Amino acid sequence: MTRWQPDARGRLQQAAIELFGERGYERTTVAEIARRAGLTERTFFRHFPDKREVLFDGSNTLQRTVGDAVTDAPAEASPIDAVTAGLHAAGTMLQERGPFAGLRQRIIAGSEELQEREAKKLLALSAAVADALRRRGVGEPAASLAADAAISVFRIGFERWTAQDTHSLCEILDESLDELRAVTAGAPITSVRG
Amino acid sequence: MTRWQPDARGRLQQAAIELFGERGYERTTVAEIARRAGLTERTFFRHFPDKREVLFDGSNTLQRTVGDAVTDAPAEASPIDAVTAGLHAAGTMLQERGPFAGLRQRIIAGSEELQEREAKKLLALSAAVADALRRRGVGEPAASLAADAAISVFRIGFERWTAQDTHSLCEILDESLDELRAVTAGAPITSVRG
Repeated sequence: MTRWQPDARGRLQQAAIELFGERGYERTTVAEIARRAGLTERTFFRHFPDKREVLFDGSNTLQRTVGDAVTDAPAEASPIDAVTAGLHAAGTMLQERGPFAGLRQRIIAGSEELQEREAKKLLALSAAVADALRRRGVGEPAASLAADAAISVFRIGFERWTAQDTHSLCEILDESLDELRAVTAGAPITSVRG
Repeated sequence: MTRWQPDARGRLQQAAIELFGERGYERTTVAEIARRAGLTERTFFRHFPDKREVLFDGSNTLQRTVGDAVTDAPAEASPIDAVTAGLHAAGTMLQERGPFAGLRQRIIAGSEELQEREAKKLLALSAAVADALRRRGVGEPAASLAADAAISVFRIGFERWTAQDTHSLCEILDESLDELRAVTAGAPITSVRG
């Protein structure tokens, strides 16, 4: 029986996520990750500067994907419609990663250092979206506010998505955006609980 | 001539901010901060665990101030009106700190580590506001979305405030909130630039 082998980078990520989940992030070494992936430490360091970056490798891809979607939205799209296109691109990308994304989330929740890094990455994602909006001619503070709104919907929607398995990520992102619209418009207290 | 002397804690904060501004955060030691404040290292460590925390000492006070204002808003206030009360409380508190707040912002902007810490503190502030909203009976995801919207308005409004000296922080926060409302309602691209 032969089994499909993902590339070295993918194997290292898979091994790292497994080990972080089993032993905890702090107690896992690069040597152990390399061994589990059937590779050498040297190979690990060709792909990642340290074990922390294994978890944030996707952030740059995500940032590019979202930024491109905002840039490519129709010229007449409103700022919120342009960032919605970005949200859908992010939703489609992460939907495919499925269990990996949920496990990663739990690992990050267990470490103050990783939470700080993740929080900073979300701000960088927002800054990239705001940049893309400004290049579309959106003024400030509208560009930064629309970008932050998108990141908020993404962060909160993503958490809700990993806690259930009925709705797709894009569906949940759309619902969350509708809810944000209602909240900012001054909707009264609702008793719906997620 | 006698000069009013703030308490030890305040003097240490003042000295730290000055030194971080003059020499950079990385190159400033706790010994230097204590010397500038006319105090000992031992006194420093009675007030702060390390030099980083001097910059984040106000975060807990801010979190309490904002959380209390959200809790104390009239029972019938909508979620967005409750968080607006929180924003005004934050605005009033930070307005008084004036130049300190702006200098702190520039120091944080110069260090990746401090940026990560600040980003995490903002997420914690958002979580505290969401908690206060849930205790008022606001459901999810409305509570988390309203809280994030408030933190976004706060973060972006605060930056705008430090870049000018015509408007009060509360005025700028109100304007930013109006702008967020317009953006989420689907307002088209504006060409107003901040």
